Amino acid sequence: MGAADRDLEFHADRVGEVTDDEYVAVTQETFVGHAIDEFRDFEPVSDETTVYYLYVTDNAGRLVGVMSLRELLNAPEDDVVEDHMVTDLFTIDAGADPEYAAAEIADRDFPALPVVDRDGVLVGVLRTDDMLEVVEEEATEDILKSAGFSFADVEQSRSSAILESSIPRILRLRLPWLIVALAGGLLAGGVIEVYEETLEAVVALAFFVPVIMDMGGNVGTQASTIFVRGLALGQIDDRNAMRYFAREGFIGLLIGLIIGSIGGGAAYFWQRNEPYALELAMVVFVGLVSVCVVASVVGYVIPWIMNKLGYDPAAASDPLITTVKDVTALLIYFWLAAVLLQELL
Amino acid sequence: MGAADRDLEFHADRVGEVTDDEYVAVTQETFVGHAIDEFRDFEPVSDETTVYYLYVTDNAGRLVGVMSLRELLNAPEDDVVEDHMVTDLFTIDAGADPEYAAAEIADRDFPALPVVDRDGVLVGVLRTDDMLEVVEEEATEDILKSAGFSFADVEQSRSSAILESSIPRILRLRLPWLIVALAGGLLAGGVIEVYEETLEAVVALAFFVPVIMDMGGNVGTQASTIFVRGLALGQIDDRNAMRYFAREGFIGLLIGLIIGSIGGGAAYFWQRNEPYALELAMVVFVGLVSVCVVASVVGYVIPWIMNKLGYDPAAASDPLITTVKDVTALLIYFWLAAVLLQELL
Repeated sequence: MGAADRDLEFHADRVGEVTDDEYVAVTQETFVGHAIDEFRDFEPVSDETTVYYLYVTDNAGRLVGVMSLRELLNAPEDDVVEDHMVTDLFTIDAGADPEYAAAEIADRDFPALPVVDRDGVLVGVLRTDDMLEVVEEEATEDILKSAGFSFADVEQSRSSAILESSIPRILRLRLPWLIVALAGGLLAGGVIEVYEETLEAVVALAFFVPVIMDMGGNVGTQASTIFVRGLALGQIDDRNAMRYFAREGFIGLLIGLIIGSIGGGAAYFWQRNEPYALELAMVVFVGLVSVCVVASVVGYVIPWIMNKLGYDPAAASDPLITTVKDVTALLIYFWLAAVLLQELL
Repeated sequence: MGAADRDLEFHADRVGEVTDDEYVAVTQETFVGHAIDEFRDFEPVSDETTVYYLYVTDNAGRLVGVMSLRELLNAPEDDVVEDHMVTDLFTIDAGADPEYAAAEIADRDFPALPVVDRDGVLVGVLRTDDMLEVVEEEATEDILKSAGFSFADVEQSRSSAILESSIPRILRLRLPWLIVALAGGLLAGGVIEVYEETLEAVVALAFFVPVIMDMGGNVGTQASTIFVRGLALGQIDDRNAMRYFAREGFIGLLIGLIIGSIGGGAAYFWQRNEPYALELAMVVFVGLVSVCVVASVVGYVIPWIMNKLGYDPAAASDPLITTVKDVTALLIYFWLAAVLLQELL
């Protein structure tokens, strides 16, 4: 049987691009016996193409029914297909997003589904086995993009190609985002410089910079993952995006209160012999709460805006999220430190 | 037609768990006409189950051939199926990993593939449309796990359930990793405390802590994504893992040299009026090179070890990667600073 020749070398943005045109269709007045002959005569281009549905259209080409080959075999040969076809149709819109379509049809047991245009005219067949490849590719792309591989190139690369690419190509895939992250990191460092005097007075403030950055990074990644995945699978749309956003912000606050309490407690215990231990613990607490809330909010909002502007939300959001949450959280942390610890200055 | 009732409520670890037992099989001496009758008599449990292959076995139940229903219709009714069946078989092993099997079969055009045990006995049928659901779920799980959702719970949750879960459940899914990251962040802060005197002498050292942490985080995520995705899709295995590892370390070094040069240059320019500008720039350069190399190496090795120990490499590696690269890079950064800037102490 061997592997099929067909290969999805392109990135499909619309269901129509993975639609197969190898199918058998007849009009509704066709006799069952004639429809069976159509199947016998049908010569698929590829040996492996299995075509086991008969699609029934009206004279304008609009899909009106479907029959499986088994149903066809069980029907009397001189009846017309209209009397036996199933009219409760499940169709896919040619303009639908393939990943969304895949999620929609994943729990249905059809090896192929008819694809129709906006007038209901049958334009082809979507084969579930082709969708498998699309989903695998899209999932890989989403994962690579959210790890900062430059998104224009990822679309052209097969995932296997990324492992085997030449070193210059790998660098071109990986470096752009890293350079943006470098700029963001230096900007965050600039915030610390603004509060250089405060830091000189209480060097211990520097000990909590890593934990604030780590927490923001993790919380932000969780929030953006929830948004990007929910969007890709069609669970988040315009109607409920605001509700999930409010929820995400509230969860960020709860996480911040829990993490902030633990972190603040640890800071107090660690620096308990210093005169400013209590103030420092409060600064760490507020810093951690702030970073969790800010990271949740920007982790959700930035991919959302990217998507609204027509960009891929899985790509190019993360360095922005990182920079915004780092700069905001470090500003709040050092500003509060400057206020609470000012008698030490 | 409606959605099928069947729902993959469990996480499939083996192909055998998603194997369908609704299929038609006959022994090789069966007449074609009788085989067609078998199809007519076959009553699938679900209306949507489409069964369009005839599986042909020997008397021991071993799969020896396959015929499509169309081929069956075109064969003379009083021939035996053995004379017309296809014997060049593509089968799936019942013990195979579903995601790997899906990647293997994604470019083949079969709506269903026979599943055999180690003796070649037909045990069921793997339907590509069921695989679609498995792949979608596994990709979602991989993505959620790598964003730090606790992995035991993710396996039980459908991705839609994560958006709609109760707040306590969401916190249980998200907090465990965040608490580990909190501990890791505090540990990294402890490294800074060790070099408190150096930091007091040159407070500007704190300005570059964010950029070193950001770069390590991004490079480490890229490395672990490459490893985890390559493993899931079967591109990385025991034979080539070492080669890709060496490659990843080399790429980390190249990235470090490029990023380190830019970062070191920026540090020199930024602090050019300070007497220690050159030393600081060198410390930042070495710190960035170190963190890129360490993050590439541990980003690849920790998921690899996790996988070897039988854990899911997509989960539970990231806080470890973050902590190891932060602690290592900050140690190198501050140690070198202490050495190069010691005349200022």
